[in-house]
Amino acid sequence: MRVGVVGAGQLARMTYQAGIPLGLTVRLLAAGPEESAALVGQDVTLGSPTSRQDLTAFAAGCDVITFDHELVDAGHLAALEAEGHAVHPTADVVALVQDKRRQRADLSRMGFPVPAYRFVDDTAGVVDFAAAAGWPVVIKAARGGYDGRGVWVVRDAAAAGSVVAETAARGVPLLVEAWVPIEREVAVLVARRPSGESVVYPMVETVQRDGICHEILAPAGVPESLAAEGQALGAAIAEACGATGILAVELFVAGGRLLINELAARPHNSGHSSIEGNVTSQFENHLRAVLDWPLGDPAAAAPAVATVNVLGRSSVDPATYLPAALAVPGVHVHLYGKPARPGRKLGHVTATGPDAADALVRARRGAEILVGGTEG
Amino acid sequence: MRVGVVGAGQLARMTYQAGIPLGLTVRLLAAGPEESAALVGQDVTLGSPTSRQDLTAFAAGCDVITFDHELVDAGHLAALEAEGHAVHPTADVVALVQDKRRQRADLSRMGFPVPAYRFVDDTAGVVDFAAAAGWPVVIKAARGGYDGRGVWVVRDAAAAGSVVAETAARGVPLLVEAWVPIEREVAVLVARRPSGESVVYPMVETVQRDGICHEILAPAGVPESLAAEGQALGAAIAEACGATGILAVELFVAGGRLLINELAARPHNSGHSSIEGNVTSQFENHLRAVLDWPLGDPAAAAPAVATVNVLGRSSVDPATYLPAALAVPGVHVHLYGKPARPGRKLGHVTATGPDAADALVRARRGAEILVGGTEG
Repeated sequence: MRVGVVGAGQLARMTYQAGIPLGLTVRLLAAGPEESAALVGQDVTLGSPTSRQDLTAFAAGCDVITFDHELVDAGHLAALEAEGHAVHPTADVVALVQDKRRQRADLSRMGFPVPAYRFVDDTAGVVDFAAAAGWPVVIKAARGGYDGRGVWVVRDAAAAGSVVAETAARGVPLLVEAWVPIEREVAVLVARRPSGESVVYPMVETVQRDGICHEILAPAGVPESLAAEGQALGAAIAEACGATGILAVELFVAGGRLLINELAARPHNSGHSSIEGNVTSQFENHLRAVLDWPLGDPAAAAPAVATVNVLGRSSVDPATYLPAALAVPGVHVHLYGKPARPGRKLGHVTATGPDAADALVRARRGAEILVGGTEG
Repeated sequence: MRVGVVGAGQLARMTYQAGIPLGLTVRLLAAGPEESAALVGQDVTLGSPTSRQDLTAFAAGCDVITFDHELVDAGHLAALEAEGHAVHPTADVVALVQDKRRQRADLSRMGFPVPAYRFVDDTAGVVDFAAAAGWPVVIKAARGGYDGRGVWVVRDAAAAGSVVAETAARGVPLLVEAWVPIEREVAVLVARRPSGESVVYPMVETVQRDGICHEILAPAGVPESLAAEGQALGAAIAEACGATGILAVELFVAGGRLLINELAARPHNSGHSSIEGNVTSQFENHLRAVLDWPLGDPAAAAPAVATVNVLGRSSVDPATYLPAALAVPGVHVHLYGKPARPGRKLGHVTATGPDAADALVRARRGAEILVGGTEG
């Protein structure tokens, strides 16, 4: 079977790796030959994920099309579907996750717990919403944001006004949300087949800084009942949306309750710990799901697992420090082969262990060494 | 770093997979584009592992040369070393493992436990040896055997005579060994760096039929003291031989004692269970070892692990049955992408679990389905 992945970043790279034991031909549509997955994949097509023509040509040689990012035109995907191509996640689900307005409206209508929100077009709308919800409020760009981009916490009308002015100039539709006093951020991954079967991964806890995922810990530091509630919520959302492949549901824990932060319809940073920490990785289950094959066991494979992202601090290639990082006992280093620059996700380090604290110490040490830090 | 692998079979394929997270460029010297690893690798050079010219050209683009099989000319490797190339395992160790006469003589001289043996050139030599050791005896071709080929258990002088006649015609040097009443077959893998550091994997038990590995189980069904003795033996052999990369030491358990069956200086079938069953797989540690990088933790990652080889029964591609095999709970399927034919190793299935019996049942079921068997 030939699985076509649109995009060739690190998610595609790890998906490629997962496809090898399954004997799959994983084809890649890459914007350039130096992209993370294009460096390791055998079957790389250069082209644009936003070009209808490139997508059509690529799809012709694939049994199913999937994605490593959501920067695609859902209309083009719908056209591929109309031509008879299997596209997973579907054009409809891609459109849903691309549009934060629609995400909120759909989830809210279906009865899933989301923060209070309103679509806004001007500063007056924000101020009016804040009059009821209280300051601060969170303004979000409905499209194009990721890793903290497109999200602004504003504390007064003046701050709101400058966000609205700046985004209006670019024609970005906005929504405003109640600011949630977040106790923890957690995530639940669901793998779901077109024919309906799904499996839900154990809840993980994510540690975000400036909107960027830094650490992933499992099990999450929440009561078991809340973790189970999150898993049930994830499965219900995947079912309600008709998600196929991996659906990542990022959640806030606030006041002891779960609120949906955001959905992603692809393998997700919060699932990187699944490569070593779960019986079946998110990447393998994504492939199995989009092929409508039986899904693998998502259960934990170790008592605890910690993953720490390698976020660039300079332009020094983390490979320079790889031997030193590998001296940390029991760490699994994953490098993405991307040119280093400050703030960029260049890799991740995972450690499993008897408890989360032990695993976290080692994973952090490995990640720190890879960006030139000292081992201490 | 660029690691050149001479050979592109399934061992190279799994080594390629292990190189992706490490950010390595794993180059492959393949005899043809349809070889197992050549199907997934990006950087494939077509050439012959026995051609001096092809090896020299390949080595020029690699920081270290290693192997997925031992069908190379040790003289060519020595020449590469003389030209300054890093070759691991070294030409000397490759020469040792290629030659069963030298293997027995060296191991015996160094005091390691081997069956009683003698070099023989004619039937009289075999008969003379058997007069002391007793019939049956085992005649082995000193070179070129694998997967049971080149090994003959003979029960009398007539049978010995026909083996000698047949091999003499091909100019194959022989040795004869005492037949050992084998209780179990076990194996110990050692990863060793050129600078001397080594790690030893927990002992596994292998189930062989007709000289071909069918199943791998860990932990091995032997007393802990014997397993520890085997690990110490493996480390001592690796050290004494100057092995680099993975050294596989296949052992017989006979009369409650360990006897060395055979050495292999590369990732080995008995280590396939390490992909899911150990913290660091043999393939990752082989790469780390040949690069002289710190080695990964070889400890068990699960209480028990079972691996069952997928041995072809027909020409039907096991991929045909893959979805059905994936329905078996918690199995990890590894397909090698090789054309199916009876007796050929086409893949393997691994399961981890709370105990070996449970893991074995599931791994066997998965492997059976992949060759068209019924699930029962």
